[in-house]
Amino acid sequence: MNNRVIALSGGIGGAKLALGLAKVLDADELVVVANTGDDFEHLGFTICPDTDTLLYTLGGVSNEAAGWGRADESWSFMEALKQSDPDNAWFLLGDKDLETHRYRTQALANGSKLTEITANLASEFKVAPAILPMSDDPVRTFVLAENETGTSWLPFQEYFVKLQCEPRMLKVEYRGSQQAGVSPQLKQALTEHVPRAIVICPSNPFLSVDPILSVPGMVDLLRGCGAPVIAVSPVVGGQALKGPTAKIMQELGMTVDVTAIAEHYRGIIDGLVIDGQDRGQIVPVQETGIKAMVTNTVMVSLEDRKQLARDVLRFASSVERA
Amino acid sequence: MNNRVIALSGGIGGAKLALGLAKVLDADELVVVANTGDDFEHLGFTICPDTDTLLYTLGGVSNEAAGWGRADESWSFMEALKQSDPDNAWFLLGDKDLETHRYRTQALANGSKLTEITANLASEFKVAPAILPMSDDPVRTFVLAENETGTSWLPFQEYFVKLQCEPRMLKVEYRGSQQAGVSPQLKQALTEHVPRAIVICPSNPFLSVDPILSVPGMVDLLRGCGAPVIAVSPVVGGQALKGPTAKIMQELGMTVDVTAIAEHYRGIIDGLVIDGQDRGQIVPVQETGIKAMVTNTVMVSLEDRKQLARDVLRFASSVERA
Repeated sequence: MNNRVIALSGGIGGAKLALGLAKVLDADELVVVANTGDDFEHLGFTICPDTDTLLYTLGGVSNEAAGWGRADESWSFMEALKQSDPDNAWFLLGDKDLETHRYRTQALANGSKLTEITANLASEFKVAPAILPMSDDPVRTFVLAENETGTSWLPFQEYFVKLQCEPRMLKVEYRGSQQAGVSPQLKQALTEHVPRAIVICPSNPFLSVDPILSVPGMVDLLRGCGAPVIAVSPVVGGQALKGPTAKIMQELGMTVDVTAIAEHYRGIIDGLVIDGQDRGQIVPVQETGIKAMVTNTVMVSLEDRKQLARDVLRFASSVERA
Repeated sequence: MNNRVIALSGGIGGAKLALGLAKVLDADELVVVANTGDDFEHLGFTICPDTDTLLYTLGGVSNEAAGWGRADESWSFMEALKQSDPDNAWFLLGDKDLETHRYRTQALANGSKLTEITANLASEFKVAPAILPMSDDPVRTFVLAENETGTSWLPFQEYFVKLQCEPRMLKVEYRGSQQAGVSPQLKQALTEHVPRAIVICPSNPFLSVDPILSVPGMVDLLRGCGAPVIAVSPVVGGQALKGPTAKIMQELGMTVDVTAIAEHYRGIIDGLVIDGQDRGQIVPVQETGIKAMVTNTVMVSLEDRKQLARDVLRFASSVERA
């Protein structure tokens, strides 16, 4: 059990590496910590998009083309919703997917903890590694966005899905975070043995990883557990492979490169995995005090995912804790 | 507006005549009162099967072959539910149908009344006549059923759908009924003008009609509104055309014939519409003090539904209030 890898992940991009890790590790060697900052209440359901993407991806029931949602899905509920309540039909909910939200919502109403609910779902989808929500307490990401007349705070999914990240992001807040705690299960995973590695998956730093890190006690647990902390850069060749990471970095006045990622995670990570396209930045990364490793981080095939997982683990074993 | 017909209806059987009435009357001439005794809480949703059957039937979006549920339905949610929670997969919920339950459940949680919610759904499904739940207050039908070791009270849908009316019914209760009230909208419909007729549709007396009549004040309003009260017998030729009416009558020690139906509704109705097969019982029915009219009550085609509606209305206009 001291071979355990703890991976921090958002949705689609992070889940790719999580799947790679799941394929190269034994079931009890992997714990995936899911961002819950993008959870939201919608149509009466509590929806946990990143957790569900991890569940479906690691359970082998995901829509691989989309990266989210379930395979062999149908959309009759959405059809009916578009008729009955078109203003609330901006978040796509597949018919099978709905049962996940139905179950979770009802279990929460009955007093179950998110960790326990997620474990039940994982068992249903035959997910071998543990998937742990970053907290059992609600944390909700809000984005301060520029609009035509000024600025307004948007709940994350309105910014992300409804407005498709169109407005300029000025600031991000993880509401509820300061009242939230690390769950007992995650605390135990981080303290009962020294993990082999902490891996920050190539997820959006602001929208997927920082919410996890914002939970009081989380950074101390990660830094204090004795394992090397390794991030995989979500930026490759000055671009984000998926999602609005690059756009947001620009809006926040950052340079869109792996050095900026290293700066962002400085004090948290010991090593950064960067793509071959960014080998020119090894020196500036290392000047931040963070070790760099170069490999292919662009995951197209399952083999890519597994290879990156193996590379990350090899790198972790070579990195001394700072 | 004093041409208004108030029809009391359960699900499938009643909805057939309600559709016939809707086709032969103007939109503002028909109010359908829906049984809510078979409403139930399931999977976190509040489900109103009889109301939904009326909505879908009168809205022209019903699955005509089944008589319940929506046309062009898909079943992915059920597929997922059978995987995740097979013990709770006994009540079929189509994917489109789910949006109805989702909307109603959320609106109830937000404090809306069932009457208002039903009106919104009716408007969405372009249902012209008013559909009014018998009450805004929850009434839940329970069946005292015989089992191998004794007896037990079953919530209605467990008896009706899960156990398919298999156990012997010893007794039926409409829980919450004594605390329930007739809604202001229904009270108004029954009092603002003298209706043309009150029509009790050919629904199950014990499971669909009596729950409506059990709401305090309902019988007085129906009897006091000045309109003739006409029932259409759900029993034809000693059998129920649909559902467990005949079985239940036997279990309750009744003879399965139209005279027993007349006896059951004695004091409530002024006239009973019976099928040609039962013309031999005109005399015993009339001996109960209830007028009888003979016509074809077996509704196969839409024309049958319209013809029966016309016959019922003609009969009503000929019946003096007792």
